[in-house]
Amino acid sequence: MRKDIPLPTLERLCKVHRLLEDLEKSGMTRVSSTDLSARLGVGPPSIRKDIGYLGEIGNFRAGYDIRTLRHHLENGLGLNKKKKACIVGLGRLGSAILHYERLGLNGFDIVAGFDSSINRLETIATVIELHPAHEITEVVRRKGIALAVIAVPSVAAQEAADRLIEGGIRGIVNFSAAVLRPVKNIFVRDIDLVREFRILSVLSEPYWKKQQP
Amino acid sequence: MRKDIPLPTLERLCKVHRLLEDLEKSGMTRVSSTDLSARLGVGPPSIRKDIGYLGEIGNFRAGYDIRTLRHHLENGLGLNKKKKACIVGLGRLGSAILHYERLGLNGFDIVAGFDSSINRLETIATVIELHPAHEITEVVRRKGIALAVIAVPSVAAQEAADRLIEGGIRGIVNFSAAVLRPVKNIFVRDIDLVREFRILSVLSEPYWKKQQP
Repeated sequence: MRKDIPLPTLERLCKVHRLLEDLEKSGMTRVSSTDLSARLGVGPPSIRKDIGYLGEIGNFRAGYDIRTLRHHLENGLGLNKKKKACIVGLGRLGSAILHYERLGLNGFDIVAGFDSSINRLETIATVIELHPAHEITEVVRRKGIALAVIAVPSVAAQEAADRLIEGGIRGIVNFSAAVLRPVKNIFVRDIDLVREFRILSVLSEPYWKKQQP
Repeated sequence: MRKDIPLPTLERLCKVHRLLEDLEKSGMTRVSSTDLSARLGVGPPSIRKDIGYLGEIGNFRAGYDIRTLRHHLENGLGLNKKKKACIVGLGRLGSAILHYERLGLNGFDIVAGFDSSINRLETIATVIELHPAHEITEVVRRKGIALAVIAVPSVAAQEAADRLIEGGIRGIVNFSAAVLRPVKNIFVRDIDLVREFRILSVLSEPYWKKQQP
């Protein structure tokens, strides 16, 4: 019954889930697909179609019960399963992520941090186990870590990825600007602030629109 | 001649540009579209089509001249134009971004930082002008700031966005988990590590594949 979810749908569904959490917290109990769409900036048919990927949820003409829809998404996407994660690179950005509480609150337990500088490992105050970078493969394998964040300089990113993959990592969030070599069945999400700014520049550039045919 | 670029194409072109920079630095001068595709994990026809959005670049059967292709992308996308940017929220993440050199090196000048805590503003060591959050609108307008990063807690994100938009901001990178209200002609890119981990979890989950019809 369940079909393979296209990536853009998966991205939108995660955003819908996030929005539902906020609406629920604000005391709302029902929401229409029109209202959901307006808050997300996407057309109502898309939202209904996206939600439909996870199976029937009954008559949505009367609007969705927020709590039911949230559970529907959580069960459909398996959002409540716990996963172990680690962070490679504990500079300013990596340390910020190490202390980011929302990860643990949402089932992603940061169980290890890595850095190539022993000095740095000794100065970071945390209850999370820290290791030198050459232990990545061994620790990832021993602890069964599924996900990793790479927050090292570009030049060191591919080596970090290779060690993680050798240890059995399944998914990587790559905050470095390096373009990592694709590996079958290893999933990578690139987050590059320069690229985000570039995309925003092009989207918001009036000269671009004016030069259209 | 130039057509409106679909967002996925724009995202890929930015990644191609990033890859070309690295190849050039490594001493390579030519690259085939097959090689580019392999390094990006995308089919060669897509890459050629993506590049084609920016106009003709001649016979690519002999491969691309890397420097020419890089300039082609830079001119086509207007990547070399300088833009002013600011950061709202100077906690661990915001401070890390404030010190992120790649932004300035790529034409994005961070010209202001904002935080609601005066204490925090006084303890951050930087040459960048820092201001209390209530001055966002005024400073963004006065300096003509085009882009902003929001790195405040979720509950404060919408207010930060409202102030930025009132000051005339064109694009926002939203690192908070909040889903911001869409506003016409204001472009937002959401970066949420929890969502990235969720997407990776679904993509890499073997049970998901097994339950397909």
